Amino acid sequence: MTLCDIGNSNADFYQDGKVWTLSHKEFYAFTPQEKVYYICVNDALKEKLEHKAQFIDLEPYFEFDTIYQGMGVDRMAACYTIEDGLIVDAGSAITVDIMSGGMHLGGFILPGLSAYEKAYASISPRLNLSINPSIALDALPQRTHDAISYGVIKSIVTLLEVTCKDKRIFFTGGDGKFFSKFLNHSIFDRTLIFRGMLKVIKNAHLQ
Amino acid sequence: MTLCDIGNSNADFYQDGKVWTLSHKEFYAFTPQEKVYYICVNDALKEKLEHKAQFIDLEPYFEFDTIYQGMGVDRMAACYTIEDGLIVDAGSAITVDIMSGGMHLGGFILPGLSAYEKAYASISPRLNLSINPSIALDALPQRTHDAISYGVIKSIVTLLEVTCKDKRIFFTGGDGKFFSKFLNHSIFDRTLIFRGMLKVIKNAHLQ
Repeated sequence: MTLCDIGNSNADFYQDGKVWTLSHKEFYAFTPQEKVYYICVNDALKEKLEHKAQFIDLEPYFEFDTIYQGMGVDRMAACYTIEDGLIVDAGSAITVDIMSGGMHLGGFILPGLSAYEKAYASISPRLNLSINPSIALDALPQRTHDAISYGVIKSIVTLLEVTCKDKRIFFTGGDGKFFSKFLNHSIFDRTLIFRGMLKVIKNAHLQ
Repeated sequence: MTLCDIGNSNADFYQDGKVWTLSHKEFYAFTPQEKVYYICVNDALKEKLEHKAQFIDLEPYFEFDTIYQGMGVDRMAACYTIEDGLIVDAGSAITVDIMSGGMHLGGFILPGLSAYEKAYASISPRLNLSINPSIALDALPQRTHDAISYGVIKSIVTLLEVTCKDKRIFFTGGDGKFFSKFLNHSIFDRTLIFRGMLKVIKNAHLQ
């Protein structure tokens, strides 16, 4: 069984515990040999997949307790196996969701690291710099490169700390491992979304 | 006497307590009737002004105690009259500087509100939304529009709260008044940078 999570930048695949990634372009050229159970937040790609019998959209099978309107199916999948905790998917965007007693209490969205870099570059050529991942958060920055790195990472980490209180934080996504280093009681699980998808497949008796 | 602070988006003018703004395009067409004391962080514009006798660059006259490398002259001006406090200039970028006993301890930079909006729009058409300025920060968001507004404003406000401890916060810049509402012990002063420029003119006996 192959699972696929199609995001705004890439398509992530999962099969028997193995995980790999295709760009959207590579994904267009990909012909599966077996059924692919997928979720997709990219409207253009989703429409194309609807006409392909090999691809089965899992979105209609999610049963998720929330009053949040228009929640992306990838966020639902990431939360789907967590009873209590903060769920952070740090990819193109950084989505943060709060689960308590199996209920979704709400969530918020920050730009992803490369979107922050684009934001700075759009302001001034002087701010067209990459984020320094080894920035120290316990000392005030003394140069522009550190000032933007600190601004991004410290503002995100501080908001996560304030939000999580004593809850555990579950990180996933391309930058999930990076952020998990800054927070105690945090867990990085690259397969969090796929575990949610497997739970849906099991509960809906799709296999 | 006319003062002018040329930023990445606009040129702000000050004369006898009055403040007004020109776009860069309007600024190019502007011919002053008297001397204009200016600071400028836009390299292209700065080079043009060097050849105009009516325009006097105040940057060489700043005497500012810091180890920060490459600090923008507008940030120095904003800090120049503050002995102790957090100085936040919320414009195209949001610069945050910490002064203690007349010394600059360092600072950091966040994207400005419209740069955040561009960052979200670059991720997905679903996030191409404007920030809702009346978002409540004491309740978890339940829809995408609120989720991005909360993400931006709460992450900025929380980092300012954690950084300021018991210091006063001085806000300036186009969005300074907006942010000052979220923080106790905060002061909004639209003329903060101009007050720094006036101090430089006085100390250097330029007038």
